[in-house]
Amino acid sequence: MTAIDVVIMAAGKGTRMKSRLPKVLHRLAGRALLHHVIASAQALQARKVVVITGNGADQVEQAVSGWAHPGAPAPVFVRQEPQLGTGHAVQQAVPVLPDDGVALILNGDVPLIEAATLQSLVESAGAKRLALLSVEMPDPAGYGRVLRTGDAVSAIVEHKDASPAQREIREVYTGFMAVPNALLKRWLSRLTNDNAQKEYYLTDIVKLAVQDGAQVVAVKTADKVQVDGVNSPVQLAELERAFQLRRARALMEDGVRICDPARIDVRGELACGQDVDIDVNCIFEGRVSLGDGVRIGANCVIANARIEAGAVIHPFTHIDGEKAGVVVGQGALIGPFARLRPGAQLGADVHIGNFVEVKNATLARGAKANHLAYLGDADVGERVNYGAGSITANYDGANKHRTVIEADVHVGSNCVLVAPVTIGSGGTVGAGSIITKDTAAGALSIARGKQVSIPGWQRPQKKPKA
Amino acid sequence: MTAIDVVIMAAGKGTRMKSRLPKVLHRLAGRALLHHVIASAQALQARKVVVITGNGADQVEQAVSGWAHPGAPAPVFVRQEPQLGTGHAVQQAVPVLPDDGVALILNGDVPLIEAATLQSLVESAGAKRLALLSVEMPDPAGYGRVLRTGDAVSAIVEHKDASPAQREIREVYTGFMAVPNALLKRWLSRLTNDNAQKEYYLTDIVKLAVQDGAQVVAVKTADKVQVDGVNSPVQLAELERAFQLRRARALMEDGVRICDPARIDVRGELACGQDVDIDVNCIFEGRVSLGDGVRIGANCVIANARIEAGAVIHPFTHIDGEKAGVVVGQGALIGPFARLRPGAQLGADVHIGNFVEVKNATLARGAKANHLAYLGDADVGERVNYGAGSITANYDGANKHRTVIEADVHVGSNCVLVAPVTIGSGGTVGAGSIITKDTAAGALSIARGKQVSIPGWQRPQKKPKA
Amino acid sequence: MTAIDVVIMAAGKGTRMKSRLPKVLHRLAGRALLHHVIASAQALQARKVVVITGNGADQVEQAVSGWAHPGAPAPVFVRQEPQLGTGHAVQQAVPVLPDDGVALILNGDVPLIEAATLQSLVESAGAKRLALLSVEMPDPAGYGRVLRTGDAVSAIVEHKDASPAQREIREVYTGFMAVPNALLKRWLSRLTNDNAQKEYYLTDIVKLAVQDGAQVVAVKTADKVQVDGVNSPVQLAELERAFQLRRARALMEDGVRICDPARIDVRGELACGQDVDIDVNCIFEGRVSLGDGVRIGANCVIANARIEAGAVIHPFTHIDGEKAGVVVGQGALIGPFARLRPGAQLGADVHIGNFVEVKNATLARGAKANHLAYLGDADVGERVNYGAGSITANYDGANKHRTVIEADVHVGSNCVLVAPVTIGSGGTVGAGSIITKDTAAGALSIARGKQVSIPGWQRPQKKPKA
Repeated sequence: MTAIDVVIMAAGKGTRMKSRLPKVLHRLAGRALLHHVIASAQALQARKVVVITGNGADQVEQAVSGWAHPGAPAPVFVRQEPQLGTGHAVQQAVPVLPDDGVALILNGDVPLIEAATLQSLVESAGAKRLALLSVEMPDPAGYGRVLRTGDAVSAIVEHKDASPAQREIREVYTGFMAVPNALLKRWLSRLTNDNAQKEYYLTDIVKLAVQDGAQVVAVKTADKVQVDGVNSPVQLAELERAFQLRRARALMEDGVRICDPARIDVRGELACGQDVDIDVNCIFEGRVSLGDGVRIGANCVIANARIEAGAVIHPFTHIDGEKAGVVVGQGALIGPFARLRPGAQLGADVHIGNFVEVKNATLARGAKANHLAYLGDADVGERVNYGAGSITANYDGANKHRTVIEADVHVGSNCVLVAPVTIGSGGTVGAGSIITKDTAAGALSIARGKQVSIPGWQRPQKKPKA
Repeated sequence: MTAIDVVIMAAGKGTRMKSRLPKVLHRLAGRALLHHVIASAQALQARKVVVITGNGADQVEQAVSGWAHPGAPAPVFVRQEPQLGTGHAVQQAVPVLPDDGVALILNGDVPLIEAATLQSLVESAGAKRLALLSVEMPDPAGYGRVLRTGDAVSAIVEHKDASPAQREIREVYTGFMAVPNALLKRWLSRLTNDNAQKEYYLTDIVKLAVQDGAQVVAVKTADKVQVDGVNSPVQLAELERAFQLRRARALMEDGVRICDPARIDVRGELACGQDVDIDVNCIFEGRVSLGDGVRIGANCVIANARIEAGAVIHPFTHIDGEKAGVVVGQGALIGPFARLRPGAQLGADVHIGNFVEVKNATLARGAKANHLAYLGDADVGERVNYGAGSITANYDGANKHRTVIEADVHVGSNCVLVAPVTIGSGGTVGAGSIITKDTAAGALSIARGKQVSIPGWQRPQKKPKA
Repeated sequence: MTAIDVVIMAAGKGTRMKSRLPKVLHRLAGRALLHHVIASAQALQARKVVVITGNGADQVEQAVSGWAHPGAPAPVFVRQEPQLGTGHAVQQAVPVLPDDGVALILNGDVPLIEAATLQSLVESAGAKRLALLSVEMPDPAGYGRVLRTGDAVSAIVEHKDASPAQREIREVYTGFMAVPNALLKRWLSRLTNDNAQKEYYLTDIVKLAVQDGAQVVAVKTADKVQVDGVNSPVQLAELERAFQLRRARALMEDGVRICDPARIDVRGELACGQDVDIDVNCIFEGRVSLGDGVRIGANCVIANARIEAGAVIHPFTHIDGEKAGVVVGQGALIGPFARLRPGAQLGADVHIGNFVEVKNATLARGAKANHLAYLGDADVGERVNYGAGSITANYDGANKHRTVIEADVHVGSNCVLVAPVTIGSGGTVGAGSIITKDTAAGALSIARGKQVSIPGWQRPQKKPKA
């Protein structure tokens, strides 16, 4: 198989984004545009990935370095300074490109190109051809037209240089090309900038190829979304929606039931078992897996979590496992208005109800915290009932400590368990108790004031406004 | 009036759903596809409703039995095993069909057919005709074409058997037909399976009718949504959206103001008074009624509830009355972030604020629980002010008990009322009190520790990581 | 510059709205239709704004009086009673119109007209012409057609009076016109009602102008949304969506990143700095400003607030400053599930976490209230840590009092601070304490019961159902 060296144009400024962030670092589906492109390159098992940076080069290079791509070669950066055109950009890559293999030119701001499309472009180039990716546009104004003689491409003519007849052509160049490295280097060395803009145009290599008698082919894609670039927030939003609709459709074709495909956002990897139902307006981020029969209610935000078979996530639930992850066990019931934070590990049949926050805590099978509660840095045993309004005081203002609630404990309402503390198995904590010392198994522990009554008490009266 | 016997095809497998659930049990607008079809049949006052089951027959029959249709005849099941085609399916119904009346063939996976359309189909059949429901399709590929001689239908030809000229026909058969029982039985008995699939096709009765000199008519519907079937999650989502948009439009035509008709989901019955406003992204389930002037804020989920005139439901409110129902009284203010659970019965001008849960509790006129509180199994009198963070401890770990808070009581913050307990009218409960014994009317009740001070206290220091 | 006197037709009934509210008071983007129209009039620096009222006149006049338009002339009301047609309506305005200047006729139910369009209409009228605003409609049925002789308008013919040839005309009159006051008065005085409806039609002045040899011009707008009227909730929703999409697009063109332009609602003024990100399904109301780099998570509702640079608002956050306003300081982190109410003034780097409500309280730099808490009527110093479940008891049942928490205080979990009370700087409040007296700086304050244990305690048993 021919080795593929990917060259990614990522030096542009992106003025219309009106942002301090370099354009290729803007995010689509939670991931930088350039990251999408690099992922496509790596799906092709590229030998080299060369990223041409310029505007915001430091930021771009730092960002790319932070993306882990296990098993793939680390991207190589070359800088284009100053920026003298697309041909000049690719010229910067020449020193790091081998003489064998095929160069595949990608654009850091065209994120949705698919590996299969690129593969067929590379195959069209083969060992001797210049292969361009083209697309038909209903309104091609502003784009470079593909001129053909028979099937072969004879030139790409920029819109402003095109004759009226040429402007009728709707096949335009997308900015993607594949070309054997040896030929690319030969043609790049002969580019000139004798044009109005005084720039070196990469598309000029088409005429050099024709001069040399090399074959130039254009592979036409029918899928405009793959070749759409991002130049403005409007275009970014359009492409985001196109991407999300495709993602939703792909999930549905795998059997996932999505109540409204126009109201789901998947920003990362979402793996679903059989008979998964997702209600309207949900967001998934990072790595999320949903087991068989899982139901996700409306308006949930779920990130970095594993939801096991049969669990039900009620509306308005916010789960974010960040790096530590969150696990929701089989048949668990979560929400509405629940929040699961990093390190929440819930066993089977656990119930977490409204206005309850769980962080860095394990709950064993059948444990319940149904109302207005906080469980942080805690180990909760099987069948524990954790009362409304109760809180693990895990933070002494300086350090965090662990609370252990053994199996079958019943914690009453509005208790505070001041960590480090252990509630022995089968014990009961009376409502409103502040527990600072370990309690024995089976004991009732109480820490509260005695109830007194002041009869005929006169409540404060509303004061007149001064 | 001619008696109508409805025959519903519900034996199919629905492979493309990729589900363990039989296809006809998948839900649209919160109700199984087959349930929609049966409801249409019952709207016609069908004499008999015959459901032909096959794949997942037990599940389907059990589900249908669970749907209450007061005053309507219970559906009769006949099983088709093995499944040898649509004609074979209807043959199974012959033993339970009377000899008089008209049979109306429906499909369990075509949920949005309307009774008026079916009524006109039955009338077209009359006593002697075979009446088919047809529709024009822009792209009819794959569907059986309706061949006409003049106005009369001469045959239905399957796509694969159609000549190129016939494939140009855009009128296709929808799967719905009406035919006098006597004729249906006669023609069904003459069906053969001498075709490539070795199946008995119901559509073959068209040619038998023509052979017998009976008139075959096709009633064309202009409304494709009514005859769209569900074969995949993609189609299910498309039909769900079509249904919801229609529902939204119908509500708006009744005067309901819906901020975004593309972002409302109604899964059940929603009855609205005059001048009702519904903000974006709301969901209604089961039976919900909204009185005159009710305003529903964004992102509410409301099920099985009656909201009386002038009440305002703020954003992010979750109401689910399940079987017990929820009542929100006139002029009440609820939310944001409130949750009303089964048996919450709120009187006029009640206020339920953020992070408050109410379950199985009555609140009389003007009672307020505005912040972070739980009210369960309670009776709350008029004008009671229930403090932030207060909780009715209704569950002793084994049984639930009732809390009574009489009129004009002021419950301070972070109290626990340990049920069974009564707070006498006009009484005050001091902040942080755990009340376990009944309190006298007008008394101030306190149960808390004495405030002590340890001067110059040294707080814990951050420990170095080991 | 010619003086402009705006005349707004606001007397209609709006039967199809099916509402008790006069049609022109229905809201689009949070503002009455008529309010939008008046704002456009004032953007033109109109000399006079005359509002013709009729149906619901009292309600309309009262509403208009309540809208503050600083620096603009107060609208003048004239009543049309009974309602005898559009010409009759404008006749009511004659007594209050000067003889010089140009009258600009607007419609109170056509809210999205833009000042630039009106300005060009006024300029077309100049000193001597009648200028009509027209639009091309794909389906003009029901509208008055613009008849032209060459460029000049010769008449407006009502649909029902139009010949078949005239019905082919797709240019229709929009209801907007500009005409010198002197001419308007002259023509209005000659209107008759000799037609089937016995109404005085404003459009009849076209033929009077032609009779008088005055020039009639029609200015065609390409932007149908500007001239769309609201006659029903369906049309109101359509126009709302058109407006919101335009608003989203304008924000994006300024550099704001909007995740889904079909799922954002802006009802008021939204000012954004650079690099603002807004996730799906957010609502902005009143006056909101978002500083540089602010990120708004999904499903937030934000009204009347200033969010300073770098602050992050997590999903499900509800902020409403009403009149007092809310300020979120630089780099603050808010939510998820937070609620900020009027007078919440948060300094830089403040953290407000889940299920926390803040009202009429200042929090200095670095203060934190991360879990299940209420802070109302409080002054919180720098770096204070306010524990989970803690509450300021600001309301004694009659009056509100202030809580002061000085810098570096650590308030434990489930505390109640009973106002008026001051926690001295650097002090600590033990978990579960009810603090009713001021505490000294640096002291540990505790008010709780002693922990006791009852070994081998027998919990209640589940009672059999009676």
